Amino acid sequence: MPQRLIDALVTTDAASAAFSDRALLQAMFDVEAALARAEAAVGIIPAEAAVVITRAAVVDDDIDVDTLVAQARAQATVSIPVVRVLTTRVEALDAGAARYVHWGATSQDVFDTALVLCVSRAWTQMAADQARLTGALVQLADEHAGTVMLGRTLLQPAVPITFGLKAAGWLGAVTRTWRQWQQALDNLQVLQLGGAAGTLASLGSHGLAVERALADELGLAVPDAPWHAHRDRVAAFVAACGVHTAALGKIARDLSLLAQHEVGEATVPGGGSSTMPHKRNPSGCAVVLAAATRLPGIVASVLAGMVHEHERSVGGWHAEAPAVADAVQAAGSALASLADVVLSLRVDPARMRANVDATRGVVMAEHLALLLAPAIGRAKAADLAAQASAESAASNRPLAVVVAGMAEAAAHLSTGDLERLASPDAYLGLADAFRRRLIDAARTSSDGN
Amino acid sequence: MPQRLIDALVTTDAASAAFSDRALLQAMFDVEAALARAEAAVGIIPAEAAVVITRAAVVDDDIDVDTLVAQARAQATVSIPVVRVLTTRVEALDAGAARYVHWGATSQDVFDTALVLCVSRAWTQMAADQARLTGALVQLADEHAGTVMLGRTLLQPAVPITFGLKAAGWLGAVTRTWRQWQQALDNLQVLQLGGAAGTLASLGSHGLAVERALADELGLAVPDAPWHAHRDRVAAFVAACGVHTAALGKIARDLSLLAQHEVGEATVPGGGSSTMPHKRNPSGCAVVLAAATRLPGIVASVLAGMVHEHERSVGGWHAEAPAVADAVQAAGSALASLADVVLSLRVDPARMRANVDATRGVVMAEHLALLLAPAIGRAKAADLAAQASAESAASNRPLAVVVAGMAEAAAHLSTGDLERLASPDAYLGLADAFRRRLIDAARTSSDGN
Amino acid sequence: MPQRLIDALVTTDAASAAFSDRALLQAMFDVEAALARAEAAVGIIPAEAAVVITRAAVVDDDIDVDTLVAQARAQATVSIPVVRVLTTRVEALDAGAARYVHWGATSQDVFDTALVLCVSRAWTQMAADQARLTGALVQLADEHAGTVMLGRTLLQPAVPITFGLKAAGWLGAVTRTWRQWQQALDNLQVLQLGGAAGTLASLGSHGLAVERALADELGLAVPDAPWHAHRDRVAAFVAACGVHTAALGKIARDLSLLAQHEVGEATVPGGGSSTMPHKRNPSGCAVVLAAATRLPGIVASVLAGMVHEHERSVGGWHAEAPAVADAVQAAGSALASLADVVLSLRVDPARMRANVDATRGVVMAEHLALLLAPAIGRAKAADLAAQASAESAASNRPLAVVVAGMAEAAAHLSTGDLERLASPDAYLGLADAFRRRLIDAARTSSDGN
Amino acid sequence: MPQRLIDALVTTDAASAAFSDRALLQAMFDVEAALARAEAAVGIIPAEAAVVITRAAVVDDDIDVDTLVAQARAQATVSIPVVRVLTTRVEALDAGAARYVHWGATSQDVFDTALVLCVSRAWTQMAADQARLTGALVQLADEHAGTVMLGRTLLQPAVPITFGLKAAGWLGAVTRTWRQWQQALDNLQVLQLGGAAGTLASLGSHGLAVERALADELGLAVPDAPWHAHRDRVAAFVAACGVHTAALGKIARDLSLLAQHEVGEATVPGGGSSTMPHKRNPSGCAVVLAAATRLPGIVASVLAGMVHEHERSVGGWHAEAPAVADAVQAAGSALASLADVVLSLRVDPARMRANVDATRGVVMAEHLALLLAPAIGRAKAADLAAQASAESAASNRPLAVVVAGMAEAAAHLSTGDLERLASPDAYLGLADAFRRRLIDAARTSSDGN
Repeated sequence: MPQRLIDALVTTDAASAAFSDRALLQAMFDVEAALARAEAAVGIIPAEAAVVITRAAVVDDDIDVDTLVAQARAQATVSIPVVRVLTTRVEALDAGAARYVHWGATSQDVFDTALVLCVSRAWTQMAADQARLTGALVQLADEHAGTVMLGRTLLQPAVPITFGLKAAGWLGAVTRTWRQWQQALDNLQVLQLGGAAGTLASLGSHGLAVERALADELGLAVPDAPWHAHRDRVAAFVAACGVHTAALGKIARDLSLLAQHEVGEATVPGGGSSTMPHKRNPSGCAVVLAAATRLPGIVASVLAGMVHEHERSVGGWHAEAPAVADAVQAAGSALASLADVVLSLRVDPARMRANVDATRGVVMAEHLALLLAPAIGRAKAADLAAQASAESAASNRPLAVVVAGMAEAAAHLSTGDLERLASPDAYLGLADAFRRRLIDAARTSSDGN
Repeated sequence: MPQRLIDALVTTDAASAAFSDRALLQAMFDVEAALARAEAAVGIIPAEAAVVITRAAVVDDDIDVDTLVAQARAQATVSIPVVRVLTTRVEALDAGAARYVHWGATSQDVFDTALVLCVSRAWTQMAADQARLTGALVQLADEHAGTVMLGRTLLQPAVPITFGLKAAGWLGAVTRTWRQWQQALDNLQVLQLGGAAGTLASLGSHGLAVERALADELGLAVPDAPWHAHRDRVAAFVAACGVHTAALGKIARDLSLLAQHEVGEATVPGGGSSTMPHKRNPSGCAVVLAAATRLPGIVASVLAGMVHEHERSVGGWHAEAPAVADAVQAAGSALASLADVVLSLRVDPARMRANVDATRGVVMAEHLALLLAPAIGRAKAADLAAQASAESAASNRPLAVVVAGMAEAAAHLSTGDLERLASPDAYLGLADAFRRRLIDAARTSSDGN
Repeated sequence: MPQRLIDALVTTDAASAAFSDRALLQAMFDVEAALARAEAAVGIIPAEAAVVITRAAVVDDDIDVDTLVAQARAQATVSIPVVRVLTTRVEALDAGAARYVHWGATSQDVFDTALVLCVSRAWTQMAADQARLTGALVQLADEHAGTVMLGRTLLQPAVPITFGLKAAGWLGAVTRTWRQWQQALDNLQVLQLGGAAGTLASLGSHGLAVERALADELGLAVPDAPWHAHRDRVAAFVAACGVHTAALGKIARDLSLLAQHEVGEATVPGGGSSTMPHKRNPSGCAVVLAAATRLPGIVASVLAGMVHEHERSVGGWHAEAPAVADAVQAAGSALASLADVVLSLRVDPARMRANVDATRGVVMAEHLALLLAPAIGRAKAADLAAQASAESAASNRPLAVVVAGMAEAAAHLSTGDLERLASPDAYLGLADAFRRRLIDAARTSSDGN
Repeated sequence: MPQRLIDALVTTDAASAAFSDRALLQAMFDVEAALARAEAAVGIIPAEAAVVITRAAVVDDDIDVDTLVAQARAQATVSIPVVRVLTTRVEALDAGAARYVHWGATSQDVFDTALVLCVSRAWTQMAADQARLTGALVQLADEHAGTVMLGRTLLQPAVPITFGLKAAGWLGAVTRTWRQWQQALDNLQVLQLGGAAGTLASLGSHGLAVERALADELGLAVPDAPWHAHRDRVAAFVAACGVHTAALGKIARDLSLLAQHEVGEATVPGGGSSTMPHKRNPSGCAVVLAAATRLPGIVASVLAGMVHEHERSVGGWHAEAPAVADAVQAAGSALASLADVVLSLRVDPARMRANVDATRGVVMAEHLALLLAPAIGRAKAADLAAQASAESAASNRPLAVVVAGMAEAAAHLSTGDLERLASPDAYLGLADAFRRRLIDAARTSSDGN
């Protein structure tokens, strides 16, 4: 009874594939096969058994998922029925080998480690989308180094900035949050192998050797101790996923605002309407923002679930894997969609300039106040600038013109000052310095990865 | 690429079926067919067209879900490709009729109304499970009216209660929360039909008639106005779902605590372990608590998503349907699982009594203090009772025996008092009165439904 | 060490007063005094004791809050030290009466009931602000019944609506969510009195009489049973608070978008900038949206906290009261702020019209398609309309003019059709009908309250 | 109108002091004074002005917080009225200097940087509590290296572990989560200085120099660019706070479970009851778990708030500071409380052993199955072990005795095997190896800090 349509906007094919029945089963089979090989290498199960188990551990269409799901619910763990299926498959090849399936491990060992593998496998596509996104942002930031636009605070015109700086700011945020998410992934890529309650007593004196060998088989690190009841690595990963997705959401919100008909500074290619032939919806932004709406709650669930009871919780653990899968899929969807949006974005520098000009220069009011302040003090200067702004708005005349006619102000301003008041380009401060620092930091970061 | 295993513990077959691709598609087709019939009845499309559309609006296996999903992502709405599929199907029967598919409606109309239908269809099984659960709780509450057990506060022995009261308390909570969820469902069962931006201009002078006819076709109420941008009904429904699931979670937590080996007052039939042959895990409780861990975050997401922009949001709406589906499935899973658990629960009154006795009567310390208070004041009485409790614990003698030996206390106690101090049954207060009130209220409530 | 500045934007004076130290203490004293009177009336404590306790139960500045806070932390309950303070105060008046303070009750009884009183007291100001808000919205909705503006979906022009409908939609949402919050308040206004573990054994045979008398004293209802461990009423109240605040947030978001310089359809009086003399920030909207950002997480916390252990939880209960206070304060802040904003809102119908006109009529593309569809089919009609829209945009000519020049389209359109295509006012559908229904429903609702 | 009582269980004196009105005001004054000195050093304001501003920037009791709060609400920022207050104070000393207050900065610069200072100042006490906690955990882990106890999964007996391992597991988790929180703090300790919209245009050519000088004055790092609209550092800090608090919560939950009367393995010194003289409540655990219940929602709010609009958001930013203060206070409260609890914890090794023995050896069932498996296969061995466990429970005889009487099993077991089955100490696997690795890792980590 697959559910794909209802989740269509909060996942992608690649992201959902990483957590599909087939992928999860294969990851669990991979863990079991690697365990057998590790145990054979250490000498606690026969080498031939490991060969047979490895051979049997290939998922195909014969597996009855309906039954697995029903049994998983009854046992509150997916592993028990999956181990049973694998055992049956091994038995069909070699009854002797079947007795060594899952040797010394517990359900959670297999499931947790398999989940780590699934997450790792989802990462590849996300890393590619992150690279597409940051590449496109670097290009935008470079291309529009000199494109002047309104800085907007509380959705009102503030002072001029450049679109290059804006794009570089986006780049900086998603680079930092990705790097931290990557570190959280690194921390998560550890083996879980603790046996029944985290002592690996089932492996007698061979525990450490099997642990090392299994970790090597799977390309995972060995943690200080099994983490069955300590879920900080998972929670930190999901939290970092939430921070990254929020950073993506901020970009999508900015773009959807720039794409408003009344603003018109960006065109975001997108979807149509089932009834309005003229519509060009920023559908890619909607997909990103859907993920950003979804993630905070998922993070909250995973944090709440961390408060485990003793050596394995009642419920906390059981809620975790679906949340991890939801989080990664939503983040993957946001990444893929935002990369598409930014790569096909069309920016309209002329409209950006027109929107600056439409303020009649009141965005230079701060500049005016600063020009006047040394002479008449900050408070008085701000008053005059506010007065000039109001008059500019009321009379629909440029601020510089209004100011030129205000004796009290004009007395303290040179002709050059008045010219600068009419030139937003002359009031960009460190826009370009910050832009360059952001790009440099992003480059350094991706070199490091 | 179905994902069922990873979600196995947070849904059921019935709950996931309600949001399956087939169910969602059929619900959308149902809305389109009903719209056509409504419009035919009103006279704005030909009656034959409605007949053909209704005939074509039957989901079968030929529909290519892969393509639908891809197009849904591109358009940020499932409806556009689904309408296209339906149109093609109608065209195959009668090209003339095809032009009347989706007449005057917009994507969101179809999707929102279909979502309401899916939720309504999921309700049937949940109502059955709720009835199973409350039936079992009433029986427990009746059967154990006189079963004395420890009341426990902050997980420490408090004063005696009855298991009948405890079960009735659970019953009361889940009855209240269900009733409120049901009301929220009633409020949600309204038509969404607003056209492009909520004015139904597309239907000219026929809007009100179509609205009425369509609501009747679908068995939904007509709202004051289209609710495309006002999602309070959905959010209130999901919030009530969260409250109900938390009430279920409280029961599961209590049961998992009672089932501890060291407590042993209840046996919760459950799952085994992949490695420990002796294990009897309260797996049903784990499933309920997984849902209770999952829901708060989902509620938070839906509330956050309510802050829509203008007549249709960018992202807020798009995050909603997956969250609704997740919420209903987790709640349905918790309900089904808890009903199973409670129906097969085995209670051990002897062990309950033994656990009371194991406190050596210190749970009667409040009673002791109250017996002494009239004579020596509340503070002094409490001090003596605390002293007696400590001595009882230190010397491992019953509280009543210790007290009999404390001159300061014994002076104010009759022989009957000392006997009562040794009888937890005599200190149950209103346990039975409250138990009966709770059961009566629950009965009244379900009569009302 | 008061913290008011850091919370300045998420509370109001009135809302924080309802949960101030003084208010909470007084509410707890009120409960204790009412308990004494109820017990005196029932005859289990002396009438004079109740008189003295009532006399002593007046909070003044002599209470050492530092000590209370420290002791509350040590005991994990505010009640124990507060009861001690009250007892000392009664003792100072009459040592005999002191022994009857808190007779038969437990800490949670006093605190929970006091919290209900605090919430009820916070309600008054909120109800006044809600009335101010809905009054202002009704007026806007009436005044602008005929003010045509853009309907905007996904932040893009859709079809024309009226501002009257938009305001009525806001009104409808906040009326519905308020009504439900009010019902949740009604459900919450019940006494908590259960004694040590919910049996009221401490009151012997007088429990029911005291319960009734105390509820009457406090103007609260008697619940079926004590609810110390069943927090559904609290959670439902906080959840309804979350839904209402989100409905307020939606209005604030719409207003902040309408107030953008580039849109200019509304002026939201607001704050300035510390550096930009020209700024007019929609600070009231920011305050509302801050609350809407804050609430979903609070709701999630309260839902998570509902999963209590047995008869009193370890932690779940302890997290609840601060969350309730936070929720009510944020909601109260949003209500007060939005009422102010809407009351002083200035709407610019001319600019609304200009923004419609600036689309050159492409918002009539749906109308065009519907006019053509009967003749040439829905699909072909949509294509032509899309083509005309694109040409209108490219050539900057009105849609009606473009269409008149397209033979394929013009052939099927009358002169009247072409005129209507140039008249957004003629394509408002049920805007006014819906507007009136929403206002009527809101009126009915407030009559009912 | 201070609110301290209602928050008594979710903060501490030290933690709330860090965000008190006085502390926040002083932090803001500190930023303004440092800005003046930095600008004087760079030469854009007179050196004497900086001296006077620094002299005036000392918070005292004369500041009218009522007015500040009211103005903060009106402006949606605390900074504007605070800057005004400081300006007035400077004016009183030297009217000339007053004009240089807040030169070139914007409200958010001052507030964000001050918030970073407040957080940093809260850290000191938390670090001390963390050191107390980890010190106590190391000692417990060492002292109880050989204390055998039940491992418990899903709250049921699993296999034996040691309390030393359990304590070391707690230590490992809180060490890892603290280290990550510390890193998040390091990342957050950056200056915010961007002027009106992040370009620092107000400082003309001196921006970079002032930025560097101000960061040095305050002991903060210089970020790549102002982060007014990119809140990833704040969100990552709050998320790490949430992960750490959840790790604390897990310990508190374990302790409250061990302290149950029926388990009795740990005594957690705690609070009493207002009515039950015998009560010893784990109140410290309740305080920790209250924080763990509170945090997930706060994290969700901060993540949701990250989706800012353009260069300064409407609402997202405004909701952040209260959430940060709430998060740090709750975490600080949990840390302080858990350190107290663990330092005064009394562990009962004899009871731990008795609880193991009370299982009659069924916790050795896994061991039995593993002993039998090489001879008869894993499945058959598990069946026999399950059968023996059931018989042990039914007949109340030790597992080893039951097994000795089962021919099918006994045939494959040596006398030594049967002895080992009766010795939980002999089935501890890597408990001690893991314990040592965890302690070593924790030591390395704190050396590194």
